[in-house]
Amino acid sequence: MKLSCLQENFSRGLNICSRITSGGKPGLPILENVILIAKKGLLELSSTNLEVAITTQVRAKVEKQGKITIPAQLLANYVDLLPNEALTLTTTNHELTIKSKNQKAKIKGISAEEFPIIPQIEKKDKYIIESKNLKDALEKTSFTISPAETRTEISGALFAFNWPKKNILTIVSTDSYRLARCEIPFKKPIGEKREDIIVPLKTIREILRIITNKGDVELYLVPNQILFVYEGTELISRIISGAYPDYEQIIPDKIVTRAHLEKENFLKIIKAASFFAEPGVNDISLEFLPKKNSLLVTSVNNKIGEHAAEVKTEISGQPCKITFNYRYLIDGLANMGHGEISLEIVDSNTPGLIKSVDDPSYLYLIMPIQPR
Amino acid sequence: MKLSCLQENFSRGLNICSRITSGGKPGLPILENVILIAKKGLLELSSTNLEVAITTQVRAKVEKQGKITIPAQLLANYVDLLPNEALTLTTTNHELTIKSKNQKAKIKGISAEEFPIIPQIEKKDKYIIESKNLKDALEKTSFTISPAETRTEISGALFAFNWPKKNILTIVSTDSYRLARCEIPFKKPIGEKREDIIVPLKTIREILRIITNKGDVELYLVPNQILFVYEGTELISRIISGAYPDYEQIIPDKIVTRAHLEKENFLKIIKAASFFAEPGVNDISLEFLPKKNSLLVTSVNNKIGEHAAEVKTEISGQPCKITFNYRYLIDGLANMGHGEISLEIVDSNTPGLIKSVDDPSYLYLIMPIQPR
Repeated sequence: MKLSCLQENFSRGLNICSRITSGGKPGLPILENVILIAKKGLLELSSTNLEVAITTQVRAKVEKQGKITIPAQLLANYVDLLPNEALTLTTTNHELTIKSKNQKAKIKGISAEEFPIIPQIEKKDKYIIESKNLKDALEKTSFTISPAETRTEISGALFAFNWPKKNILTIVSTDSYRLARCEIPFKKPIGEKREDIIVPLKTIREILRIITNKGDVELYLVPNQILFVYEGTELISRIISGAYPDYEQIIPDKIVTRAHLEKENFLKIIKAASFFAEPGVNDISLEFLPKKNSLLVTSVNNKIGEHAAEVKTEISGQPCKITFNYRYLIDGLANMGHGEISLEIVDSNTPGLIKSVDDPSYLYLIMPIQPR
Repeated sequence: MKLSCLQENFSRGLNICSRITSGGKPGLPILENVILIAKKGLLELSSTNLEVAITTQVRAKVEKQGKITIPAQLLANYVDLLPNEALTLTTTNHELTIKSKNQKAKIKGISAEEFPIIPQIEKKDKYIIESKNLKDALEKTSFTISPAETRTEISGALFAFNWPKKNILTIVSTDSYRLARCEIPFKKPIGEKREDIIVPLKTIREILRIITNKGDVELYLVPNQILFVYEGTELISRIISGAYPDYEQIIPDKIVTRAHLEKENFLKIIKAASFFAEPGVNDISLEFLPKKNSLLVTSVNNKIGEHAAEVKTEISGQPCKITFNYRYLIDGLANMGHGEISLEIVDSNTPGLIKSVDDPSYLYLIMPIQPR
């Protein structure tokens, strides 16, 4: 293999590919490597952890085709420090030589023959989503997935296709204590009926690392796998088998009490209240007083002290008192974007909802705590 | 105790005092508290970990004098979240009530009688240093002190008074592998002869947290203690007993080889080389070739690969090859400020020097590694 490419392009490609490698964790050493394949006019980079595989391309002047695998993190870190100039890459016996104007590195690799085969997915039945919509929806939902989740069916986010009802992708995630739901439009109508799928949390994190607010993302589905294509980069992931919980049934539809709140101010009050919540239980109480247009936030910890705040705001419906774990409130509010929110309650035993006034398609649900 | 003060002022005072408390580590619970003393027209805050004590003042309208101690971190975190408005502080039975417009917290405290006595140091023989000079000097030296250092005499920085030679404070720090020295002027001449003192690393970190680039810092010395005064805040610290190593003797004065280098570029090359240094040994070699005006940087790791860089630059004196631990080179360069530096070498067995062209009073010395 012999080729030349720009440092900037090579570095960007390596940064896309290098993170999913196992990163020193015990396993197959080859999985810590990125495979470099010099083809006609381009250098192709791929990495995989056997659950997710990423392939991207770098423009290159290829003199001699060939391939090699090299420790991904080392290569990415090294190339990142080089000046932005032309690099020459050559291989001799499982060793890669990188020459820049004043520096030369030789890095030992492993034969490309040992690298796992990256599955090929046929690109038919394309779904197109604006990248900024997908990014926003995944950021607003995936934080509710617990990385340590043992129930596999909620260890990823649901991608629901809603066929034939709507032209919309619904993304749902939960850890069974709270749930987030976002709806985003497809750029062209869905052709045929699709089963809903569950996409692993790790895959979502990789997608979020790769996509930006520009352009479109293409999705392709085959049994057990999903392919995301974004600006020359392809990410193939397994999907989680299992039935996602029937989330629609727990979203209350008959709201009894509704408060409008300015998010930043309310978040600060919940944080202040959180210092006085009992550790482990983390409960703080919200009391809605529509006649006084007043929301009381209280918390008590026998060892530390107690806290009470009164938020003057517009409240409609019935008086009501409900108790939440403050962590779930803080998480939900922090991911809500700026501006106004509404807090929607049925009664003290039914999940509460937080909605963003700016983005009605987004919903965050919290299970209440039974007051002691 | 009953008083009112502005949230902003109270929060600033608490942030100054709250960090040195033991922060949950086992010990005396009272040391996790800040003592609040309401005096005429002001609220005084103090905290101590028995090695360092900090006292600061907050403007307040005091209706009733009194004192109480309250968990410092909790109080600081809570007050930080309140809106910037007038707060009312009252105490009843070892409990502090903080009222703002819409919030009220009661926090349990411990009787002020149990709080350790903060030593009082008589303010005579004042030394004055510009705050920005002291800050800069401590930042450029203290990073060489090892937090885990067991040799007490180098577990702090030397403050050398140089009387009667110069009107200068010399600050020196080392972990015996490298050494940093900075010289800063006193704003008025030293009156009488002073012994050099050793200031603990933790004290230096607190000083760096408190002082900014504005104004002056006053220093007062009494046996075993030093008092820093900065804008209404007083920090009293024990000093370390013991004799500081004779550092002047290891600073070489007859330089044989000197290279001028652009810092940022050289630092990137050393970082790139570091990936190829043998772990544990961390050695990279520098070869000075004055005739070619060329500095060769090389590193080899039998498992990973090898790296060579040629830096074209002005080199005077004799050819020379020397080996350093890359971590010490990177640390020194990173703390050197921007612009040009000089690398000064005697031979492969003598410590090397890095100097900043912009700040001739600053010197960083590294012990060489004997090549294998």
